Amino acid sequence: MSNYSVADQRFMTRAMQLAREGTYTTTPNPRVGCVLVDAANNIVGEGYHVRAGEGHAEVNAIADAGAAARGTTAYVTLEPCSHTGKTGPCCEALVAAGVSRVVYGMEDPNPKVAGRGLDHLEAAGIQVDGPVLEYDAYELNPGFIKRMRQGLPLIRIKMAMSLDGRTAMADGTSKWITSPRARDDVQRLRARSCALITGVDSVLLDDPSLTVRLSDDARQPLRVIVDSKLRLPKDAAILSQPGKTVIATCANVNQAQSPYGDTEIWTLPEKDGRVSLQALARKLAQQECNEVLVETGATLAGAFVSSGLVDELVIYMAGKLLGSTARPLFDIPISKMSAQLPLSITDIRAIGDNWRITAIPDPEG
Amino acid sequence: MSNYSVADQRFMTRAMQLAREGTYTTTPNPRVGCVLVDAANNIVGEGYHVRAGEGHAEVNAIADAGAAARGTTAYVTLEPCSHTGKTGPCCEALVAAGVSRVVYGMEDPNPKVAGRGLDHLEAAGIQVDGPVLEYDAYELNPGFIKRMRQGLPLIRIKMAMSLDGRTAMADGTSKWITSPRARDDVQRLRARSCALITGVDSVLLDDPSLTVRLSDDARQPLRVIVDSKLRLPKDAAILSQPGKTVIATCANVNQAQSPYGDTEIWTLPEKDGRVSLQALARKLAQQECNEVLVETGATLAGAFVSSGLVDELVIYMAGKLLGSTARPLFDIPISKMSAQLPLSITDIRAIGDNWRITAIPDPEG
Repeated sequence: MSNYSVADQRFMTRAMQLAREGTYTTTPNPRVGCVLVDAANNIVGEGYHVRAGEGHAEVNAIADAGAAARGTTAYVTLEPCSHTGKTGPCCEALVAAGVSRVVYGMEDPNPKVAGRGLDHLEAAGIQVDGPVLEYDAYELNPGFIKRMRQGLPLIRIKMAMSLDGRTAMADGTSKWITSPRARDDVQRLRARSCALITGVDSVLLDDPSLTVRLSDDARQPLRVIVDSKLRLPKDAAILSQPGKTVIATCANVNQAQSPYGDTEIWTLPEKDGRVSLQALARKLAQQECNEVLVETGATLAGAFVSSGLVDELVIYMAGKLLGSTARPLFDIPISKMSAQLPLSITDIRAIGDNWRITAIPDPEG
Repeated sequence: MSNYSVADQRFMTRAMQLAREGTYTTTPNPRVGCVLVDAANNIVGEGYHVRAGEGHAEVNAIADAGAAARGTTAYVTLEPCSHTGKTGPCCEALVAAGVSRVVYGMEDPNPKVAGRGLDHLEAAGIQVDGPVLEYDAYELNPGFIKRMRQGLPLIRIKMAMSLDGRTAMADGTSKWITSPRARDDVQRLRARSCALITGVDSVLLDDPSLTVRLSDDARQPLRVIVDSKLRLPKDAAILSQPGKTVIATCANVNQAQSPYGDTEIWTLPEKDGRVSLQALARKLAQQECNEVLVETGATLAGAFVSSGLVDELVIYMAGKLLGSTARPLFDIPISKMSAQLPLSITDIRAIGDNWRITAIPDPEG
């Protein structure tokens, strides 16, 4: 199946570029791009999925090409769907448009349906080649893929720290550790997420809004406040922002008698007296959350890191020392060197005056 | 005086390249390079200072050129000396060789003698131009220059930490935070230093040798153990290494009755019950130490950072989390955000599996 040329890579790269246009909007659907190319290697149609409920990438590219779609090769970053969702299966649209070859980036990540779309196309006499640039195709939708495969969202944790690994002074003061450019960068992390998680202690300390401010009409991710004992103040700013906020608790509370009015309350199993993060992650996946961003203090952040649920750490480091009495990066007690948590640092780059460090858990580290 | 061409920059760059050959050996003298160039822009002689007591860069370049030195332009990274040291003044050697123009990188950093060499050359009818690439000339000898100007050595502090800013477990275990490549890099930091400083607690914990192992005949920097109360074990490994070890203390001890035999003891003023680091730094400068490397634990390292004596921090960061009960990077108590120590991160690069972060204090940060 891996029968492809340099031209195939080139057009697949263009399809991926188109897919990325949907980074902030397609959720809960995956980001997908499609390019239709004629026999003379001219692009005759392009499309990408913009948002759930609207046309899929293939359908948009076919509409863009019109009659020119006939006889083309379709480059699509993800295996075309064969099931009827909100907008009908893409496989049928490709067959109906007269496409003669389909090159795909990766198979459907849901193991139960993977390959069915390709089989459907081959049965209709279309030549199918791929996967092409599969790793890049994976990178487009790490959260969607994890959810399909494991029933869990991708969990990314964002922290801001000093060079000596401190996130706040002992009294909790943490404003202005990072610069405006770093905070803009965090906005992009929020905007690509389906949900943002914070802890009640962060709300009590900083009263954050936890909103996306990239544009006035930006999609607002679901905001989740982890509040095991329901200590959240009724007038917390986070409760009156555009979009939806939920409270994740293990306290026994009746939604009808909730002090927080209409704000949805998720009662989840507890673990060691706190909300089970495993249960919270499964709940978020059930709610079709692909990528989740955790923005919170050292205690909840430490619990996430220890839980093994975190896929990526994004740490904004400022060139300053806050000293040894300041708050730690992650509140995780480790007594032996052998119990250290190994990471692989995958990227370090300057973001304005700060440095952004990206790391992933590395079980072999 | 800043009358120079692209060709002048090119030959000065070559002279600096030569000067760097002396990085590990010239101390306490500065690293200096010299190039002699004829009227047709051909290099006819090159030289650099190798070690104290041997020929200076200018003398070596003149010897390399022989009779061809006559009528050349001499590019020398540092103003030629006009005083007679161990090997006689370079100015007279340049005059005697018949050099017709001298281009210099920077003036003598000692404000009391700066310009005298240049005046001497001009008085002899030689055209003098410069400074050329002055900042780069400064970078060759930051320690020597600081000592000449301020009577203090350049103090560099090296630490190894986890991503969460921890240097050791609570019990002091710190082996293997960093990789062999990072440890090789530390060898180069040691080799360019005139003195290495560690604290008695580090000796008690790790029993380090603190030697340069780049080659069998490597110059061994002076080793200084800060030991306010003379807790150093007599059989510490550091006392039996090639080269010289001294103990810096504020305890009242008579060298003749010292439990450490011939090991020199520096009795220094105390500050808050510990050795005054300011006094130690001045003592090291008096001993002609240009660059000093501090390799120690969080307590003494924190005292150095707080003292304002540190010029550069070199931190090797490993992709791992050691947790919130592990030892801090620097033991410095800071209670208010406004008391933070601002740094400027000047470089981050991968060294094997680790990341080396270089930072300097930034009073404007």
